[in-house]
Amino acid sequence: MARQVVSVFGLGSMGLGVACSALAGGHDVFGFDIDAQSQSNFIARGGQTGDIKNTVAKSNVVVSVVLNGAQTEDLLFGAEGVVPQMQAGSVVVSCATLAPETAQRLADKCDDYQVLYLDSPISGGPVKASKGTLTIMASGPTAAFDAAMPVLRSISENVYNLGEEAGPGSAMKSVNQLLAGIHIAAMGEALTFGISQGIDAASIVEIVSKCTGTSWMFESRGANVVDGDYTPYSAINIWLKDLGIVLDVAKASQFSAPLTAAALQQFVAAAGQGLGGEGDAAVAKVCAHNANIKLPK
Amino acid sequence: MARQVVSVFGLGSMGLGVACSALAGGHDVFGFDIDAQSQSNFIARGGQTGDIKNTVAKSNVVVSVVLNGAQTEDLLFGAEGVVPQMQAGSVVVSCATLAPETAQRLADKCDDYQVLYLDSPISGGPVKASKGTLTIMASGPTAAFDAAMPVLRSISENVYNLGEEAGPGSAMKSVNQLLAGIHIAAMGEALTFGISQGIDAASIVEIVSKCTGTSWMFESRGANVVDGDYTPYSAINIWLKDLGIVLDVAKASQFSAPLTAAALQQFVAAAGQGLGGEGDAAVAKVCAHNANIKLPK
Repeated sequence: MARQVVSVFGLGSMGLGVACSALAGGHDVFGFDIDAQSQSNFIARGGQTGDIKNTVAKSNVVVSVVLNGAQTEDLLFGAEGVVPQMQAGSVVVSCATLAPETAQRLADKCDDYQVLYLDSPISGGPVKASKGTLTIMASGPTAAFDAAMPVLRSISENVYNLGEEAGPGSAMKSVNQLLAGIHIAAMGEALTFGISQGIDAASIVEIVSKCTGTSWMFESRGANVVDGDYTPYSAINIWLKDLGIVLDVAKASQFSAPLTAAALQQFVAAAGQGLGGEGDAAVAKVCAHNANIKLPK
Repeated sequence: MARQVVSVFGLGSMGLGVACSALAGGHDVFGFDIDAQSQSNFIARGGQTGDIKNTVAKSNVVVSVVLNGAQTEDLLFGAEGVVPQMQAGSVVVSCATLAPETAQRLADKCDDYQVLYLDSPISGGPVKASKGTLTIMASGPTAAFDAAMPVLRSISENVYNLGEEAGPGSAMKSVNQLLAGIHIAAMGEALTFGISQGIDAASIVEIVSKCTGTSWMFESRGANVVDGDYTPYSAINIWLKDLGIVLDVAKASQFSAPLTAAALQQFVAAAGQGLGGEGDAAVAKVCAHNANIKLPK
């Protein structure tokens, strides 16, 4: 596999794993984060950093793992945007969850600089990111796939190609976030309901994981509630954004999404209770508060 | 393991698997169903049937896999109820999803006849039922567990003991059904939303199964929608009952369950559209109808 020069922007729980996996894949990886600690974490794992302008100018692939569409747009085209610095034919791999129409707009603007844009949201969580076993749901021109593939292979187990235009990749990610968000809110409702019936939280998580009610998010976030771990690897506030995107896209398509709306309200209530910066498992605290139930720890 | 004489009542998609697994486990199994075809299916697989009164009188274990609490109560204590025919010390293994207070009442009534009652809902679906790999979430006196264990082992992979009283087993099943019902309704919402964005249903199911948005029910019922298979192994109407039980129990505990309520309304809408007898994946048709979307096949 061709060794690529890669710049990764955003070294949070997902970005750090992506950057380290690309490094483990044999690429020449430079990492950047506005947070000094996040940047140090990558250097400590053998990564490099440098002057953004110079590094981007020599990169074949720029991977954006920032928080949202606004940050992505600022990174690419803001006052110190990187796209104007990039070589013609190099590729932006855009991993943040953003609206399909944002992806289309960013792709069009990249086109003005002869830079390729791959609408390539990722899924799998920080553990899979660090192991290079993410799932990538991507769309964009064949040339963008070709340019990005050596890096995509190093960070993922599955790369899905959803077509030649930017947009479907992000739309597919919205489908996943719709489900994931509902499942986290359902975890909160189910776990506290079970506790209200006198069953202990750890037993509920163990038993459900063997039953038809289980989900990836139930097992992940249910374990967080059992451990009393509300570290914000993925914060409550992320879901206000992501389920907001789902409902915006849905409304624009005259698509009624009542479960998504109900789930979003639980995250809004959590944020309203001051929990927006906690890990998303804290959505269970809304149900717990309403039913006067004590969660573990 | 001791060979037991077992009578299984209810030979539908779950009960037939339970009866056949008990048979494969070396027990002497008699099966009964009001539907002649269901009963024939069991005989064709090597099962026996006979006179209910005589068979029950010689059974160590009576397994009830009927549809709901009312049928369970009628089977056990109706005009031709079996409990008065049972030997002292034999055990009723009650598998239907019913309210915890119904389980308590049935256990108390069994006690009058010195018959043991195990509140033992099952989960796993028809495939696991037929393989003897169900999960059982049970509660009841140690004597009831001891009497039932040789049969429970033959039909399940996991037996959880949730305490000495009837009730917690059914409460735990309600927790599972809360999640499973929400997840099926979420499957319908997600799959039709993705189709509304131009992504084909089969791709959505394949990609989500590799992502954090997946759930047991998404993979099971999503495949049904892709195949256009609305065979009622588990019908829409089951969820009107099961989520109704969840909300009744929740209200009695002053527990607010907004996602459960939203999911129930989708099943109610499906039933209102005349789909109550279809497989529960047909809940996707509600979203599809509202958004003027065509589902596969």
